[in-house]
Amino acid sequence: MFKVYGDYNSGNCYKIKLMLSLLGAQYEWVPVDILKGETETEAFLEKNPNGKIPVLELEDGTCLWESNAILNFLAEGTPYLLTEPRLRTQMLQWQFFEQYSHEPTIAVARFIQFYLGLPEERLEEYQILQKRGYKALKVMEKQLKQTPFLVGEQFSIADIALYAYTHVAHEGGFDLSPFPSIQRWLTQVQQQPGYVGMLD
Amino acid sequence: MFKVYGDYNSGNCYKIKLMLSLLGAQYEWVPVDILKGETETEAFLEKNPNGKIPVLELEDGTCLWESNAILNFLAEGTPYLLTEPRLRTQMLQWQFFEQYSHEPTIAVARFIQFYLGLPEERLEEYQILQKRGYKALKVMEKQLKQTPFLVGEQFSIADIALYAYTHVAHEGGFDLSPFPSIQRWLTQVQQQPGYVGMLD
Repeated sequence: MFKVYGDYNSGNCYKIKLMLSLLGAQYEWVPVDILKGETETEAFLEKNPNGKIPVLELEDGTCLWESNAILNFLAEGTPYLLTEPRLRTQMLQWQFFEQYSHEPTIAVARFIQFYLGLPEERLEEYQILQKRGYKALKVMEKQLKQTPFLVGEQFSIADIALYAYTHVAHEGGFDLSPFPSIQRWLTQVQQQPGYVGMLD
Repeated sequence: MFKVYGDYNSGNCYKIKLMLSLLGAQYEWVPVDILKGETETEAFLEKNPNGKIPVLELEDGTCLWESNAILNFLAEGTPYLLTEPRLRTQMLQWQFFEQYSHEPTIAVARFIQFYLGLPEERLEEYQILQKRGYKALKVMEKQLKQTPFLVGEQFSIADIALYAYTHVAHEGGFDLSPFPSIQRWLTQVQQQPGYVGMLD
């Protein structure tokens, strides 16, 4: 059985929970508290030397890290992983976009607002993140106006990757009303068989 | 023939140049100047809605973006792309690590020092990036002490991805002397048949 080291409030960890639920796979969830320094213990660094969650531990003890790499692993051989070379590249493209242009803006703005309560000393950073986050949302909207999912007609791990923090973007102060295609897409993700919510 | 939209000084663009050189592939290089706003023109945003380089344009006009996604595309069917599921996952893991923990620290510190000349108003940010960049280098060193390349015995696109900004880390103020395994690995990458330097 898979073991997932994670935090239910983390979008990166939720990606793995959602993927496993869509696949109907059994797993054990091991809660890890970042704020208590639990990702920096020697035992945890043996699992992920970069000290981050999520980590997927396989039955033989092998540990895989980086949420989007884990998604690629779990989706292997299922319809959630596109195999045609160009489509697979576009799937990866959206996943790298998520980690470089989307998560560091929207997830961090959410952390500052939802968890820290928007303290004065981080207001300037928050405002920069708002600007960059809206830019990322515009890029997604442009694609989702043209295709039902991020890579054409097929729901894939690119959608799982970007759904995680987009569906809680309002907790980071982002207003999704100017993005009708993103809103339509969020609903379509929620209608996938086996869907589970972040805090379900 | 491939068309690459890029900047020779950008490590992200260099990844593509190095990959194409290792493969002995023909390509046309189209210089794009970010500082002149050339990634924000309407024509360029048609190629990459996220307004970033590199972009790989295929013969039929299809444009692929995100340097690491492009590496996966170009390496398909070659020894540079590992196909065994766990190894492929680890390869992707290092590529996501590169975009989340390595590039935003080491490449940005390099930009502030090498291109901007370390201006007073960015000194605080630079010092935070130093701390985070050294953390990323430690994670790499730990792996490269155990295996010749990032994913075991085989030189792969994970190595190309991380070589790009690691080999110019000194331009961002990073001292590699405490990292003997990284230094050994840099040399091994330079010895690959078809290797080309960043400014060659």
